[in-house]
Amino acid sequence: MIVAKQRIRVEWAHCDPAGIIFNPHYYIWMDAGTHALIRAAGFEFAREIREDKLFRGFPLVASNMAFKRPLYFGDITVLTSQVEKFGNSSFVVQHEFWQGDDPQPVATGSEVRVWGYSDAELPEKLVAQTFPEELKKLLSVDGVVDTSP
Amino acid sequence: MIVAKQRIRVEWAHCDPAGIIFNPHYYIWMDAGTHALIRAAGFEFAREIREDKLFRGFPLVASNMAFKRPLYFGDITVLTSQVEKFGNSSFVVQHEFWQGDDPQPVATGSEVRVWGYSDAELPEKLVAQTFPEELKKLLSVDGVVDTSP
Amino acid sequence: MIVAKQRIRVEWAHCDPAGIIFNPHYYIWMDAGTHALIRAAGFEFAREIREDKLFRGFPLVASNMAFKRPLYFGDITVLTSQVEKFGNSSFVVQHEFWQGDDPQPVATGSEVRVWGYSDAELPEKLVAQTFPEELKKLLSVDGVVDTSP
Amino acid sequence: MIVAKQRIRVEWAHCDPAGIIFNPHYYIWMDAGTHALIRAAGFEFAREIREDKLFRGFPLVASNMAFKRPLYFGDITVLTSQVEKFGNSSFVVQHEFWQGDDPQPVATGSEVRVWGYSDAELPEKLVAQTFPEELKKLLSVDGVVDTSP
Repeated sequence: MIVAKQRIRVEWAHCDPAGIIFNPHYYIWMDAGTHALIRAAGFEFAREIREDKLFRGFPLVASNMAFKRPLYFGDITVLTSQVEKFGNSSFVVQHEFWQGDDPQPVATGSEVRVWGYSDAELPEKLVAQTFPEELKKLLSVDGVVDTSP
Repeated sequence: MIVAKQRIRVEWAHCDPAGIIFNPHYYIWMDAGTHALIRAAGFEFAREIREDKLFRGFPLVASNMAFKRPLYFGDITVLTSQVEKFGNSSFVVQHEFWQGDDPQPVATGSEVRVWGYSDAELPEKLVAQTFPEELKKLLSVDGVVDTSP
Repeated sequence: MIVAKQRIRVEWAHCDPAGIIFNPHYYIWMDAGTHALIRAAGFEFAREIREDKLFRGFPLVASNMAFKRPLYFGDITVLTSQVEKFGNSSFVVQHEFWQGDDPQPVATGSEVRVWGYSDAELPEKLVAQTFPEELKKLLSVDGVVDTSP
Repeated sequence: MIVAKQRIRVEWAHCDPAGIIFNPHYYIWMDAGTHALIRAAGFEFAREIREDKLFRGFPLVASNMAFKRPLYFGDITVLTSQVEKFGNSSFVVQHEFWQGDDPQPVATGSEVRVWGYSDAELPEKLVAQTFPEELKKLLSVDGVVDTSP
């Protein structure tokens, strides 16, 4: 499986009065991790969604996280993201946050998403579609891609 | 169990290019829901944390959500939050997002939290403490409290 | 002029390691204040943007804020928003954040916005339009509208 | 003057229903730009604030931005930040967002900040202090520092 990897600096903006990352930021980064992964596989979502007016993306159906150790303002963390499982139209992305040489991730999470199109008649309605076979192949190639900006 | 209830307006700020709520906002609201619940039971966290320098709060250990139907810009949602289970120092809060008369929540989630103090010698280290018996009693009283600002 | 007024609770989510509101949240609330103001005048932006596919809204051209006193976790603030000036297609909204009986606002800001449509040929291009005369009249009526959710 | 420079990827998370960056994100990035600048000059804020319990940082007094052209999901922008003016305890940081080879910034802003300590008796009270002479010298050296994570 392709692993998308990105470095993240824990900014003042991410921290709460306890001085640690306010938890929803991890969910924001998981979202970015999934986008990085799709992009690492060669699928330019930003362009596709502009060109294919019905393509809606891969909305989230469920997500979860476990927080093992807090990260503090000024820390650097590395996020790795990879597909854990393909369903028919759904797919599960696994995310891990690492710090330095610690062999255990400081936080882990996963997202369940569906590949979806807008209904041609009723654009607000999402129609789940079979996950593209070509993209599945590209995501299944082994390798690590650095996707830091 | 006390249920803390609050009305939330889906603002432009909460929505993504698909026109629906960007998912981490639900996690931000669950955090506010837990604070509202603790406050509804009569515990003024904001004051306590200022007066008791070692009190660290109730950091998050794990969280999850399932998204059933999207909410759009301009929608109103009602969030209900209540304790689902008390552990020794941990507690689980269940959150449900409702819309209009729909008998099913549009999204549901839960948070696992611990009641914790800073270590007196090493303030950055969190020491889990027995969940306060008095607060447990207050949270266990049946009733709905409107905590909208 | 119509004044849109809303109560805001300073949540844990809004505060930084110094325990005060992280400044961009004020800009997020100013955005909500302008939406509340437009809505208070009877213009349902969320519905209009869905029905009139070319209507793009009132994007921001410039903004600024001055911060007089910090607000802390647990505080309640009241935001008042009103039009300060109408240009041809632009309009300036003035925002003030109040606390308790303090006769001075704790923070003040303003936004310059334009009323705009998407170009029919090139939807990504914004075309500024004359600010609607009818809406100008509605916004110019004196009165205070509570727009809290 | 030292110029701190960082690449920023416009993520799905940053964009609103119009498909462009929701404006408060620019203010979040200006905050990160000022931190990057202070760090580029050799002052480790995250460590200092942990070691010097009274050091409060450099809270914001005022800020503003002008938005020339929107940025879209998938765009890359480069933020440059530098001190524009030193007051006694205050300092003004100028920020510019660039895209590709465009000789004009897509957005520009500035922040007025003060260098401050907590009052020893009343920690919530901020006492402005003379801006450190040593840091002023370090910030005044000409050069560009890439501060991307």
